Amino acid sequence: MSSVRKQAELARLAARKIAPLRRAVKDVALLAIASKLRANVAEIAQTNQRDLDKARASGLGEALLQRLTLGPAEVEATAKGVEYIVSLPDPVGSRSEARRLDNGLLAGKQRLPLGVIAMIYEARPNVTVDAAALCLKSGNAVLLRGGKEAEETNQLLGRLIGEALTASGLPNDAVQIIPATDREGIKELLSLSDLVDLAIPRGGEGLIRFVAEHARVPVVKHYQGICHMFLDASADPEKAVPLVLNSKVQRPGVCNALECLLVHEDAATALLPKLWTALKEAEVEVRGCEKTLKLLPLARIATEADFGAEFLAKILAVRVVRDLDDALLHIGRYGSNHTESICTESYANAERWVNEVDASCVLVNASTRFNDGGQLGLGAEIGISTSKLHAYGPMGLESLTAEKWVVYGSGQVRV
Amino acid sequence: MSSVRKQAELARLAARKIAPLRRAVKDVALLAIASKLRANVAEIAQTNQRDLDKARASGLGEALLQRLTLGPAEVEATAKGVEYIVSLPDPVGSRSEARRLDNGLLAGKQRLPLGVIAMIYEARPNVTVDAAALCLKSGNAVLLRGGKEAEETNQLLGRLIGEALTASGLPNDAVQIIPATDREGIKELLSLSDLVDLAIPRGGEGLIRFVAEHARVPVVKHYQGICHMFLDASADPEKAVPLVLNSKVQRPGVCNALECLLVHEDAATALLPKLWTALKEAEVEVRGCEKTLKLLPLARIATEADFGAEFLAKILAVRVVRDLDDALLHIGRYGSNHTESICTESYANAERWVNEVDASCVLVNASTRFNDGGQLGLGAEIGISTSKLHAYGPMGLESLTAEKWVVYGSGQVRV
Repeated sequence: MSSVRKQAELARLAARKIAPLRRAVKDVALLAIASKLRANVAEIAQTNQRDLDKARASGLGEALLQRLTLGPAEVEATAKGVEYIVSLPDPVGSRSEARRLDNGLLAGKQRLPLGVIAMIYEARPNVTVDAAALCLKSGNAVLLRGGKEAEETNQLLGRLIGEALTASGLPNDAVQIIPATDREGIKELLSLSDLVDLAIPRGGEGLIRFVAEHARVPVVKHYQGICHMFLDASADPEKAVPLVLNSKVQRPGVCNALECLLVHEDAATALLPKLWTALKEAEVEVRGCEKTLKLLPLARIATEADFGAEFLAKILAVRVVRDLDDALLHIGRYGSNHTESICTESYANAERWVNEVDASCVLVNASTRFNDGGQLGLGAEIGISTSKLHAYGPMGLESLTAEKWVVYGSGQVRV
Repeated sequence: MSSVRKQAELARLAARKIAPLRRAVKDVALLAIASKLRANVAEIAQTNQRDLDKARASGLGEALLQRLTLGPAEVEATAKGVEYIVSLPDPVGSRSEARRLDNGLLAGKQRLPLGVIAMIYEARPNVTVDAAALCLKSGNAVLLRGGKEAEETNQLLGRLIGEALTASGLPNDAVQIIPATDREGIKELLSLSDLVDLAIPRGGEGLIRFVAEHARVPVVKHYQGICHMFLDASADPEKAVPLVLNSKVQRPGVCNALECLLVHEDAATALLPKLWTALKEAEVEVRGCEKTLKLLPLARIATEADFGAEFLAKILAVRVVRDLDDALLHIGRYGSNHTESICTESYANAERWVNEVDASCVLVNASTRFNDGGQLGLGAEIGISTSKLHAYGPMGLESLTAEKWVVYGSGQVRV
């Protein structure tokens, strides 16, 4: 038996043991993990430094080196993150939709853990701890396959988490690090349809496409966030300018940042010059369509590739559109089902937007940056799904569970 | 472009058109389908007869021929089924979990159709109509790939449904028959991850495994129904005997029929002889473990293969177990996460059963036959999922939809 399969089999056994645990037992283990991280901050930082040195020597860029860093400040933030997960309610065991059937049966649904979850991710070693904590809280075992740049850090984190689990009386196989060898190892993990219940890839598009292509297990995936805002003819300029600015620059490198602004032609003359001033001040590069350029002659002309691009930087594509239908067509063609916001004072157009746009989060007069598990009240999130199956949008603890039917009877038979 | 891809692209366009339709518009189209079927009953029956003749000539067995039959009685039942779907509520557009966030945003979830669904099934041509009606009602387009034995019947049904859609002002590409050529065609359909949102296989285990193996699109699948009932030490004989009998013989050939009975050793002496009499009367063959044979010397001895077998016939495997834990171990090893029932008067054991058994439907003192969309109050069902992702258990209209986040603001930005 391969070592990946062996790890998955141990995870399956551990999953059965932790699935029925009460919240209090799981929370104690999570607190032990947080303590363990704090108690070993020096060793973690030293180990991470070795990963960083190797990565720097191999020519990894500054942005990736920053993601790879797990120094004392990051360890403390990660431990706090685990404690925050302790504060969240446990979805397992909750009941819903209980109904009394005509024959007297009481039928409803009860949440249960998914079982074994495979996380496949890249540089950030804090994901190792975050994902372990979210999976444990929701009663799942997890196989963590991080990036090879973070291998030594991840192995240490895995060992520390395992020790905390053992000390809390939980099976340490509930959290396992899959060695980051080559992509063959990921393929094998993704082939274990009898042992892995869900794979969650997190990282660049290349990794996610690789996972989607090779998975024989269910995958919840998030491709790009090509997020739009549409400024309708009736958009209130007092709202429009701050909304565009916040959506674009509050954190330009993330998936719910604005990438393309659509402006109703009747509002363009009034809004675009105001926006130009604000965007210039925030050092945003505007790439506009021809109609935009007539109003903003200093803007750069957009190429076809700028529409549908995920810049993840202070760049904004701008297109003047004829009307709401034109905006909806643009989004149907270039959007990525992630986050789409309208700025309007029209009731009818707000309702059409909400009903007709197919995206994991559809907003009215609100920043695109609100499509986030924390912001929407889910507590922590393990990812954002842009495919509709199982979860659509931010995935919190509940997305790591399913519902089974439970039926209470007193001897009923079917007639 | 291949013809399958072309069909899927047309389905995608049709899906966009029908997704925002109101219930009334969809119901009118469904009623038109029912009328169309009734108006063309003679042609349907004749066409089906040709499929039947071919199938009989090629040596298809009686059971399969019966499934393939779509005569006047079956057409009427199918039309009635469509009318029943008209009576069900439309899940699309419904809101849930609306919450007011601290910043004044109102955030909630709204149901939307999945998009394009691929149904891959075997002999029964009534599935063509049932699936089309369920998908349309929930605002989805559907690609129907039935068995080649039913090809001529399915093509006719597809044409009639298309005519009813056109007459109702809906795009007839919303329901399309994929020609039943060879399994390469299924593979291609399953590879269209940009166009197909969900594949639902219905049929024998071979077909379902083939779909799971080749799918690059999400699949909701149902393998076998290896359903157990556990008669606890405290089981009430007045309930136990009718429950076992109903679970086994009310319809032995279906997935929620009982296949294996587990009996607590303290209850075996009292219960097994009573059960033997009832089962013999119902012509059920008992295949028992050694302990069972001591109490029922006329029963056949069970082989290892009888445990975990889906007989789909009047055969029942019986094992005497030490206690509840022993029963849970047996189910963990041989069960298929489908339907598991306990017969007990013990509160503690009932709760342990409900909480610890991992199956799409877990019952207490009720027949396994209740794991059914109609019985559980879902209205119609399009299948029963034994995998936890997206749906677990009977899939009604709601399982053909997802939820997106909708957020109403008044200019909120993220701080």
